Amino acid sequence: MNVVIAPDSFKECLSAKEVALNMALGVAEIMPEAEIVQIPISDGGEGMLEALVNGSQGRFVSVKVKDPLLRDIEAQYGILDDQKTAVIELAKASGLDLLAEKEKDPLSTSTFGTGQLIKDALDKGCTKLIIGIGGSATNDAGTGMISALGARFLNAKGEILKQGGGSLGELERIDISDLDKRLADCEVLVACDVSNPLTGETGASFVYGGQKGGSHETLQLLDKNLTHYAAILKKDLNIAIDTVPGSGAAGGTGAALMAFMGGKLTEGIGLVLDTLNMDEYLKKADVVITGEGKIDQQTLYGKTIAGIAKMAKRHNVPVIVITGKIGDAIGGIYENGVTAVFSIVDQPMELEHAITDAPRLIQNCTKAVFQTIQRFKK
Amino acid sequence: MNVVIAPDSFKECLSAKEVALNMALGVAEIMPEAEIVQIPISDGGEGMLEALVNGSQGRFVSVKVKDPLLRDIEAQYGILDDQKTAVIELAKASGLDLLAEKEKDPLSTSTFGTGQLIKDALDKGCTKLIIGIGGSATNDAGTGMISALGARFLNAKGEILKQGGGSLGELERIDISDLDKRLADCEVLVACDVSNPLTGETGASFVYGGQKGGSHETLQLLDKNLTHYAAILKKDLNIAIDTVPGSGAAGGTGAALMAFMGGKLTEGIGLVLDTLNMDEYLKKADVVITGEGKIDQQTLYGKTIAGIAKMAKRHNVPVIVITGKIGDAIGGIYENGVTAVFSIVDQPMELEHAITDAPRLIQNCTKAVFQTIQRFKK
Repeated sequence: MNVVIAPDSFKECLSAKEVALNMALGVAEIMPEAEIVQIPISDGGEGMLEALVNGSQGRFVSVKVKDPLLRDIEAQYGILDDQKTAVIELAKASGLDLLAEKEKDPLSTSTFGTGQLIKDALDKGCTKLIIGIGGSATNDAGTGMISALGARFLNAKGEILKQGGGSLGELERIDISDLDKRLADCEVLVACDVSNPLTGETGASFVYGGQKGGSHETLQLLDKNLTHYAAILKKDLNIAIDTVPGSGAAGGTGAALMAFMGGKLTEGIGLVLDTLNMDEYLKKADVVITGEGKIDQQTLYGKTIAGIAKMAKRHNVPVIVITGKIGDAIGGIYENGVTAVFSIVDQPMELEHAITDAPRLIQNCTKAVFQTIQRFKK
Repeated sequence: MNVVIAPDSFKECLSAKEVALNMALGVAEIMPEAEIVQIPISDGGEGMLEALVNGSQGRFVSVKVKDPLLRDIEAQYGILDDQKTAVIELAKASGLDLLAEKEKDPLSTSTFGTGQLIKDALDKGCTKLIIGIGGSATNDAGTGMISALGARFLNAKGEILKQGGGSLGELERIDISDLDKRLADCEVLVACDVSNPLTGETGASFVYGGQKGGSHETLQLLDKNLTHYAAILKKDLNIAIDTVPGSGAAGGTGAALMAFMGGKLTEGIGLVLDTLNMDEYLKKADVVITGEGKIDQQTLYGKTIAGIAKMAKRHNVPVIVITGKIGDAIGGIYENGVTAVFSIVDQPMELEHAITDAPRLIQNCTKAVFQTIQRFKK
């Protein structure tokens, strides 16, 4: 029996890798002869770097870059086993988690460090970039990132602007004459599950600027600045980006990735599954086990389980979901290819107990499912 | 697909019948074409009467009898569809639950009412008695029961003893000349899961007398009285009963059933399953679902799940166990024929929530199992 084990992490409990391992232990105890492939998954947000590097026998590369406030830090990105594909998570260099609460400041935070990671990948010969842009601390429309790659954002006096979205109101001209030429030959795929435009009420500033530390006045200024920036982009480069879905992702970094790097925004889970060649594994699979910490209606919209199930359905492979919590109204999940959903919780208990005991509970739940499968299988 | 649904009750939550119904709803939602047989089970203790009467299209009979303190009450027993088999639960007429806390008194409580139920069954033509003896309030060695059927327990003056174990010290002679003759032609099967002897440290009085309201001094007196009684039984009827396993069940009622009525003590679950013709149902079954409120090591010793599993194993039928709580160290259950064990609990929750929501949780858990079975079945 070929068993593909492809869970997401159980948030605040176990990493995807740990979940997969415990599922594999459960399967192996019941079917010692089973061929088990463990492919921990990330839906393109948190954990994508690890999932892709581990899933493709890649390596991690550590680089000294600037953090969102332009202080020196070490940040990691990944190069996959083809030696051509780099996996870059914006959050590693430009993430909100890198800042203390009082340091959050969307007027001055910059994606410059992410640009440095990209530059390092280009220096190492990568020609395909997979970029995850969740968790940003920034509202600079990706101008920091692009300036690290050679573009110049200039004011009326021809001076280079200070980093950060707060300065973009002074933008007069964008000079891309020194933009890294290697980008032109690069395939850039961006894992992005939001569709906000760059500007306006549903844009980067108003929707996400608050959690990055912006007051209401700040957000109004930032939105005004991004609107101005979009106008200059149109004038100088003839690129109309501000209403394109996803251009507002990561404080406008989505816009920069599309405008300057030919980036294609795509659903994170699909990108991850493609990169991991999930299709090939599923072709040969007799069953796939996936799971997340909890299953709810959101699971139907572009997340790990739905992504796996959709792909498995094409190959007519049964999908068993193992989770900590089964939410209400998950009926739609079955139409999307999921065979059955099981909770690891084996008696009334506190959440904390379930978290502490999760490895054993995951093993036991997986065992029960495979005891059943083994007894009934063709 | 032939599905046999044979759960016990979920104690303090749902009756066996309600559990079975919700399991059936779960199966039917996934496999509308399945042939489903619902057979709620009791392990021979609480609920046996209902399980057997309902399971065999029998009827309930209500009789005016004496309660343990010889007050008039209405008590029920059952007559099965063969019109020959009576099902009698001692607890209905002589149970501890019939007494208030301060009324408990093993010196004077009597099994007389149980004898009246038996007499009524004989009057109605029954020739097979299935007797459940759990939950007794008595320590009278079944002498009350037997005196209701015509035997006389006499003191040195030839007077009939007062009812209750406290009087047995005065027993001088047992007169069975008027014992109901119809008993001789009766098959008497006793559901009994304990193996205590009538007397001594592990006997009826010392082990069970306390919970029936006996002080230490009372228990010593009762044990002495039962020892005296056993000696008279040997002298008058040449029956040595006091060390026979089970003779101490139900305050010594086990001894009377064996000595005066040719009763055969047998594991409750086996007796119930035989009476319900479970073997016939399992022969045709593709899967059996059973369950109890919780599964633990005790489940291995003669209880519903173990009984079902043992029988199913003979017919090579897979056994799915659905429960509220999966205890530790249940490994042995699999060797005994259980295929897999699932908990209905679908997320961390309070016990009370699980109890309140049990119908839905049982349905959902059953659905997940049958979604899996359906997908993998031969």
